[in-house]
Amino acid sequence: MKQKFPFSKDIDLAFKNDPPGLWMSAVPKGCIRLNSGYPEPALVPSKGIKEAVGRLLDEEQDLPLHYIGSPRIPALKKFIQQRMLKREAEISEEELLVTSGACQAIDLISRILLDGEAVVAIESPTYMEALEVFRNYTEHFMSVPTDANGLDTGRFEQMLADRKEQGRTLPRVLYTIPTFQNPTGTTMTPERREHVLKLAEQYDFLILEDDAYGELGFEEKPRLLKAMDANNRVLYVGSLSKVVAPGMRIGWVAGAEKLVTAMKWFKKDLDHPFAQATMASYIEGIDFDGHIKELTDAYRRKSSTMIAALKKFLPPTVSWYVPEGGYFVWVNVPGADTAKMLPQAYAAGVAYVPGRYFFLNQEEGTEFLRLSFSYANEQQIVKGIELLGQVIAANVEQKVE
Amino acid sequence: MKQKFPFSKDIDLAFKNDPPGLWMSAVPKGCIRLNSGYPEPALVPSKGIKEAVGRLLDEEQDLPLHYIGSPRIPALKKFIQQRMLKREAEISEEELLVTSGACQAIDLISRILLDGEAVVAIESPTYMEALEVFRNYTEHFMSVPTDANGLDTGRFEQMLADRKEQGRTLPRVLYTIPTFQNPTGTTMTPERREHVLKLAEQYDFLILEDDAYGELGFEEKPRLLKAMDANNRVLYVGSLSKVVAPGMRIGWVAGAEKLVTAMKWFKKDLDHPFAQATMASYIEGIDFDGHIKELTDAYRRKSSTMIAALKKFLPPTVSWYVPEGGYFVWVNVPGADTAKMLPQAYAAGVAYVPGRYFFLNQEEGTEFLRLSFSYANEQQIVKGIELLGQVIAANVEQKVE
Repeated sequence: MKQKFPFSKDIDLAFKNDPPGLWMSAVPKGCIRLNSGYPEPALVPSKGIKEAVGRLLDEEQDLPLHYIGSPRIPALKKFIQQRMLKREAEISEEELLVTSGACQAIDLISRILLDGEAVVAIESPTYMEALEVFRNYTEHFMSVPTDANGLDTGRFEQMLADRKEQGRTLPRVLYTIPTFQNPTGTTMTPERREHVLKLAEQYDFLILEDDAYGELGFEEKPRLLKAMDANNRVLYVGSLSKVVAPGMRIGWVAGAEKLVTAMKWFKKDLDHPFAQATMASYIEGIDFDGHIKELTDAYRRKSSTMIAALKKFLPPTVSWYVPEGGYFVWVNVPGADTAKMLPQAYAAGVAYVPGRYFFLNQEEGTEFLRLSFSYANEQQIVKGIELLGQVIAANVEQKVE
Repeated sequence: MKQKFPFSKDIDLAFKNDPPGLWMSAVPKGCIRLNSGYPEPALVPSKGIKEAVGRLLDEEQDLPLHYIGSPRIPALKKFIQQRMLKREAEISEEELLVTSGACQAIDLISRILLDGEAVVAIESPTYMEALEVFRNYTEHFMSVPTDANGLDTGRFEQMLADRKEQGRTLPRVLYTIPTFQNPTGTTMTPERREHVLKLAEQYDFLILEDDAYGELGFEEKPRLLKAMDANNRVLYVGSLSKVVAPGMRIGWVAGAEKLVTAMKWFKKDLDHPFAQATMASYIEGIDFDGHIKELTDAYRRKSSTMIAALKKFLPPTVSWYVPEGGYFVWVNVPGADTAKMLPQAYAAGVAYVPGRYFFLNQEEGTEFLRLSFSYANEQQIVKGIELLGQVIAANVEQKVE
């Protein structure tokens, strides 16, 4: 069969990266999944969702199954506004767009802000799926170092100043996960938050604040960049994936009305009335603060378990950041090649994500790996870290101490 | 608050058209909705969906609520492949992508095929929401006339030849709804189907075959362009919106593997595991052919009722195409301005869609309107047409006969 197409250029462009997710599905059955950034199965409210669908369809019959959707959907918007207000960000209805998960929000933001000339500043390391979305729009990135306190705004300022002096294109947008970051689990300090907002004003860029984990603080929830955003430069992206269920795909973007209106344009018929109505019905049936407390209690405990196991089972050269929320522990294994080590870990019965997948320049991630304490249970976490300790010990030259 | 953005060009671009749907929500309460392209409420299986969700979550618990989703999802793909095979189109798994409704499919196709230089050939009139999606990518269209037998391929050939002779850009893709078209309800003849496929080969364009209504033939289902597509030039877009529930947003695209793979790229995390799993669960619980028969029996009856009412109540100058399937009747009202007439129809208690919304050059639609027999019940249809007849009579100069 002939396969001649006139548009080879565009199509080749779309193939420029490896398909994401492919390497993640390779985890052998039976492996302890310290790789998965999924909520713990027992914490996904499948019963609550079932009841929510029952209530919704009993009360509204076909309504939520049409395009226009359920009269409950406005309640979902109001709920999101209230959650944000609780965190000191007042968002009007016009400044809010409900999306099919955070990824659609990031995609819509990219659509309206990016073209092939645009430069996106990203954290190094960063959330790889977001990076893949940006790469559909531009190949120009500015990779900004992070440390235990999140984005290194001092280095960022220097990089911006250098770029300006050299006459190079300044970033159009900074993509940051300031709170309980993926993959590092770190959180930006209040001082750095102030600093990065100042830089946005000074160097005229927007900030995409990805707050997927923001509700999951073990002790406190840091102040949102969006709550400090006097000049309306922050596009806040939220999600119920980590706190209710990822498969429901409910996220949102909150930002300047002009930008959000432009996004609504592209979103158009890509809405999901049934999913949104189901979520609205689920939320009305529960005490959401109580639900969040249940989650943070569980994840705090699991995080502590993982940190204790790391101390117990990992060689002393290995180090990590202790998270104050979220799902992840970022581990540095000096001397290792964590991508090459992965098949051994699989064989031993434990899965993690090699650090390279979180870097624009993948080499920088060679000695790092991401662990997640969200999906596995505590017993699995301890066993998994023990197995990981053995694999690392076999891979890294140990100093005898 | 300062509202300064560095990207005014891109954002202004996004505002180039009126937001779609706005004018549709203006229908006053209590109006008989002959405007709505929705399935009849009684034919939307809300009980079946509720049971499907119950079965799904009882059996799989949290699985369908994660990103990866339910083990049932492959069954949805297989089901789609079987439906297409029944209509003589053999589609491999690699050639199939499940989307969030037909609109996401059209958007993904646009993303990989269109740039600002691309020309899209469209039927005149055509499905306005598709036109809006294309307009996010290009401003260049070629509007091809239609008649009672769908796309006028003879005129199309002449237009293509003229363009070629004049050295103008040829279309990159033709967007067509060959079967039970929206808004006209017409169906392309087999001869024209052969012809348009030949033209695609000769003038090197692809065909986007939108088959949203294809399952809803009152007597027979015409052969798909995709089933006649020897050179793999057809990108077929299907949907369960019209035959199950629009709010579930389950559609798909079937086409050349290379193109579908490129689309998978852009789709990435825009999947809807819960919606797909729910649909898979719904389908496994029913006799789908029986379900389709129930729908076509109902819509055949409602279509006949509408046509009979049109004959009875409309002035003799008014004419229409008699549909053989689908949801719509396309009505020509010589001497009327159907957009200006709409407030009177609303006041009388009946809603339709003015023809202008289906044309690139809206003026061409002045004397047309679209009626739908899908949403209203038979009693409402008769009453609605009676009211419409009165409004038209009051608007159009009548010849005394």
